[in-house]
Amino acid sequence: MARIRFLPFEVEVEAEEGENVLHAAMRVGVHINASCGGAGVCNKCRVFLEEGRARGEELPDGGYKACTLVPDTDLVVRVPVESHLDRRALLRAPKRRATAWLAAAELRAVSPEPAFRRVFLELPPPDLSDNLPDLRRLKRALRERTGTEPEAEWNLLRSLPHVLREENFRVTVGLYDHPERNLPVIRQVWPGDRSGRGLAAAVDIGTTTLCAELVDLREGRVLAETSDYNPQISYGEDVISRIEFARREKGLALLSEKVRDRVGGLIRELCEKAGVAPEDLDLVSLAGNTVMTHLFLGLEPRFLRESPYVPVAAFYPPVPARELGLPVAEGAMAEFAPSVASYVGGDIVAGVVATGFFEEEPLTLFIDIGTNGEIVVGNRDFLACAACSAGPAFEGGGIRHGMRATSGAIEAVHINPHTLEPMILTIGGKRAKGICGSGIIALLANLFLTGLVDRSGKYRRDLDHPRLREGRDGWEYVVVWAEESATGEDIVFTEADIDNLIRAKGAMFAGYQTLLESVGLSVEAVERVILAGNFGSYLDLEQAITIGLLPDLPRDRFFFAGNSSLLGARLMALSRKYREKAVEVARMMTHFELSAHPGYMDYYMSALFLPHTNIEFFPSVKEKLEE
Amino acid sequence: MARIRFLPFEVEVEAEEGENVLHAAMRVGVHINASCGGAGVCNKCRVFLEEGRARGEELPDGGYKACTLVPDTDLVVRVPVESHLDRRALLRAPKRRATAWLAAAELRAVSPEPAFRRVFLELPPPDLSDNLPDLRRLKRALRERTGTEPEAEWNLLRSLPHVLREENFRVTVGLYDHPERNLPVIRQVWPGDRSGRGLAAAVDIGTTTLCAELVDLREGRVLAETSDYNPQISYGEDVISRIEFARREKGLALLSEKVRDRVGGLIRELCEKAGVAPEDLDLVSLAGNTVMTHLFLGLEPRFLRESPYVPVAAFYPPVPARELGLPVAEGAMAEFAPSVASYVGGDIVAGVVATGFFEEEPLTLFIDIGTNGEIVVGNRDFLACAACSAGPAFEGGGIRHGMRATSGAIEAVHINPHTLEPMILTIGGKRAKGICGSGIIALLANLFLTGLVDRSGKYRRDLDHPRLREGRDGWEYVVVWAEESATGEDIVFTEADIDNLIRAKGAMFAGYQTLLESVGLSVEAVERVILAGNFGSYLDLEQAITIGLLPDLPRDRFFFAGNSSLLGARLMALSRKYREKAVEVARMMTHFELSAHPGYMDYYMSALFLPHTNIEFFPSVKEKLEE
Repeated sequence: MARIRFLPFEVEVEAEEGENVLHAAMRVGVHINASCGGAGVCNKCRVFLEEGRARGEELPDGGYKACTLVPDTDLVVRVPVESHLDRRALLRAPKRRATAWLAAAELRAVSPEPAFRRVFLELPPPDLSDNLPDLRRLKRALRERTGTEPEAEWNLLRSLPHVLREENFRVTVGLYDHPERNLPVIRQVWPGDRSGRGLAAAVDIGTTTLCAELVDLREGRVLAETSDYNPQISYGEDVISRIEFARREKGLALLSEKVRDRVGGLIRELCEKAGVAPEDLDLVSLAGNTVMTHLFLGLEPRFLRESPYVPVAAFYPPVPARELGLPVAEGAMAEFAPSVASYVGGDIVAGVVATGFFEEEPLTLFIDIGTNGEIVVGNRDFLACAACSAGPAFEGGGIRHGMRATSGAIEAVHINPHTLEPMILTIGGKRAKGICGSGIIALLANLFLTGLVDRSGKYRRDLDHPRLREGRDGWEYVVVWAEESATGEDIVFTEADIDNLIRAKGAMFAGYQTLLESVGLSVEAVERVILAGNFGSYLDLEQAITIGLLPDLPRDRFFFAGNSSLLGARLMALSRKYREKAVEVARMMTHFELSAHPGYMDYYMSALFLPHTNIEFFPSVKEKLEE
Repeated sequence: MARIRFLPFEVEVEAEEGENVLHAAMRVGVHINASCGGAGVCNKCRVFLEEGRARGEELPDGGYKACTLVPDTDLVVRVPVESHLDRRALLRAPKRRATAWLAAAELRAVSPEPAFRRVFLELPPPDLSDNLPDLRRLKRALRERTGTEPEAEWNLLRSLPHVLREENFRVTVGLYDHPERNLPVIRQVWPGDRSGRGLAAAVDIGTTTLCAELVDLREGRVLAETSDYNPQISYGEDVISRIEFARREKGLALLSEKVRDRVGGLIRELCEKAGVAPEDLDLVSLAGNTVMTHLFLGLEPRFLRESPYVPVAAFYPPVPARELGLPVAEGAMAEFAPSVASYVGGDIVAGVVATGFFEEEPLTLFIDIGTNGEIVVGNRDFLACAACSAGPAFEGGGIRHGMRATSGAIEAVHINPHTLEPMILTIGGKRAKGICGSGIIALLANLFLTGLVDRSGKYRRDLDHPRLREGRDGWEYVVVWAEESATGEDIVFTEADIDNLIRAKGAMFAGYQTLLESVGLSVEAVERVILAGNFGSYLDLEQAITIGLLPDLPRDRFFFAGNSSLLGARLMALSRKYREKAVEVARMMTHFELSAHPGYMDYYMSALFLPHTNIEFFPSVKEKLEE
């Protein structure tokens, strides 16, 4: 790893493997003009190499494009005057992410104790003095080994005599502990010893993204991971439009099939990566929000969005996985993390299980930010939750040049407070196509701190700057000029966009307040904030607090849990205890309907400012503004 | 009902509705020459009407054909001299059938307590203060009603929200008590109140015949009954040839499909007869021998006939009935009576359950005569059983003119001891095509008692009678001359036929002896003999004892149970208690392998005489012979 020292600021940063200088500068809070997002076309991110060796594109004056410059050794880099006017061009503080949350899986060694076990048996072959029926012979041996006689399903009997005799009554039995039954079930019998295999897939069924892992059920190791978009996206971006689509003729069946097919594809991909056969998968553990789980199972989602918002089920029975078309062992089972309510689903329950705070003392606020934001508050004594309809702004929806976090999306922005010129980074270092969630939050935080936008979310009309102008939808800031964008158009951020974003963050903040008040607490009482979900991981903590999306608490109380839904699904696959914990969490969690709370609307209205009507809630932001 | 008095014998009989004079005479033991079986063609069964009115075909001399004569009033009928020479032309005793066994179902009122129940619930519709998921709402109500929370299967969830809302949350739940689980399962939910319906089909899967009943699960009444041949007959007459056929490619699938289709057809027929819909059938209770049950379920039957004779299962898991292609309610379950061994099957267990002797004091011998004869001995303290490979003679197999008991089969025979002329009756009063099981036994008993056949089963060579001759297969008796038969050939009974029949009855008798000896008892100790199965019902007790097929015990110890397998299946459908009893019986029953018993072969060899080598075993036959 190479160190980069930026002059004249004397700021140092450890560059990550293959990271370029522009990217490292953004991380450490050094502003370098850059308007093409790192695509190497705007030639504005000029820096001078004072010490060390690096590869990159040279400019005629002897400088380098910072977005192409990758260190071979430690470097000393000088940022030229056009990028900074004085030290104030340094970002106020290095960009801060929440500390990674060491979830239960990592903290405590999970000893695998999966609901699906493979047991190898050597049965005595029958003779005239012991000619018990095949099934009885098998059950007798299982009783001797496990102390119980499992139930057998009838369709097992068709192959049983052949399987038993294939390797002279040496067989492996797949036993499944059904969560509601007193006896395990024999789900499959293989000839010979297959007890060394036995895998599970853990799947997070996100509205946008499907994430999957392949797990070894004996050792608990993750063998492979993959992800892809949820193909239902073509039929609606958010859960509401999917519910609408499901009302069409065969709409529900189509949505269900699409996502199941894709998850099947991911499972095949995982198996290829790990060099195993899909037939070795005994368990599929899935976690998704209530709508996603309903659609996956082909359950009517309609009543989820009609008052009084009734799911078909919150505790989903286990399903023989082949009945869902998944490429797995014949006897494999699929299990779904239980939901709490129509808009607090299995992904949240899985996240709570994974992070384990429900078994600990500190009062914790667990937040999953998104179109449908979910909030859980509690500790080992209680759990309360609420869903928060924030709208799609965090995913780029309702934002003129908003887009999902894919290649070409502006994901990080800094605006020089003097020149008001932006420094942007795009995903993949491509020419900018638009702005994704984290970019939108960064933009607003920067516009606000540089004074381009006032506390009510309006652009300052009195500033004369080429990037600030009145466009067809009102006032806007030009983030990328047409000649540097991938679209050939100016990429702008409008007052209407700001308004949408403020509504979204206001809904979340009012959500915390209302939920905490419902249990007799205030925001200050929160000892720990866990940010769940992908979005949480990419969020810049300071910026999120600056715009009032997250409460202004000491920064060391914040943690990010990553895809805690996937982690929870993995834990549930690995251990029946975690499956039981999920049931416990879902049962224990009290759901509050925010819209039914009389205070919610007031809190919401008060939150429609930057960072909030009551600046005293945000002392650190107040301090920054006063500087 | 009309009384008929036969002169000159002064014997009276109550004619049954529509019964002709010939038939009534056979029943009461009056010999009338009749060689066409009642087809009205031989003109030999001439009688004279002395008093009363009757319809029938007159003969030129003023007599009537007895086989056409049906009384309108009480009659006095004179049998002319050609039919009798003296009073000895009277059969020795009226034909005696075993007393009907009043089985458990009739004896004790069975209060229905079926494993499948319909429960009507009026759920409170959801509102914002009570927006539990649909499934939870249903379970909550079930807990309130039944005290337990049943398990739900996932596929139920697809229709659940619509079903609940169809009649505003008034629903009927179909609950199934799975024999191996602690909680019932919700198998189906119907809109509105359907608790008044709820039917079951009881089915006896015989090797030859399928019998089915439709039962009301609330009141226990039989609503309809029907039967048909087992369509597998086309692929093999007996279980062995079916097992052979099943080894062909797709043979097993074909046999399975054929019988399931036909049972499905019978269920539809039952529903039509009773004016109900197949969708009202919640339960199908089936009883069959081990091979039939294996074939029905599509289980590999091959190892049943290869030493060490191992069934796939003896306790069959319940099966969702639609998975077997049966036309029933969506959630209906099919249950199978448990087997004991490869050749002592669910039909026998069902029969034992139905007759109830396993709960009573008297030592009972339960016999099902057939190609595969089954014997059970025991009482409330123990049960032992054995299978007895008697060969197909009782079903007409291996007998030159043997046939199954269908239209045109000679079912009853009397031979005039003086003229040695036969009186025969055929099924349906048609010209004779052949001889069925009961006819074969009657023939041998008559040939033996008239002295035509000696104790070793050989025809007397010294008698000069046109019906006794040496044919192409050795000595034979002509039962029906070609001109009076349906086939245009003489119908004969050969010494080879006699030999086959003696082997068959010898196998059965040696079976009783061996099984009884295995438990330390002798034939004399038997306090009750229950004849199960259709064949048992048609058997003439005196004749069966005469040839040594049944032991020579006081006649009042004999009972016939009819189709006790079907009755058992009905009881198991009606009540979980009977389902448990079946398990208890199957578990309790000790199976003896006769061929493994050192004494069996000796018993068998000794039984290859008429009635037995040791005539002292058959005192009543000895007495008849001495007369």
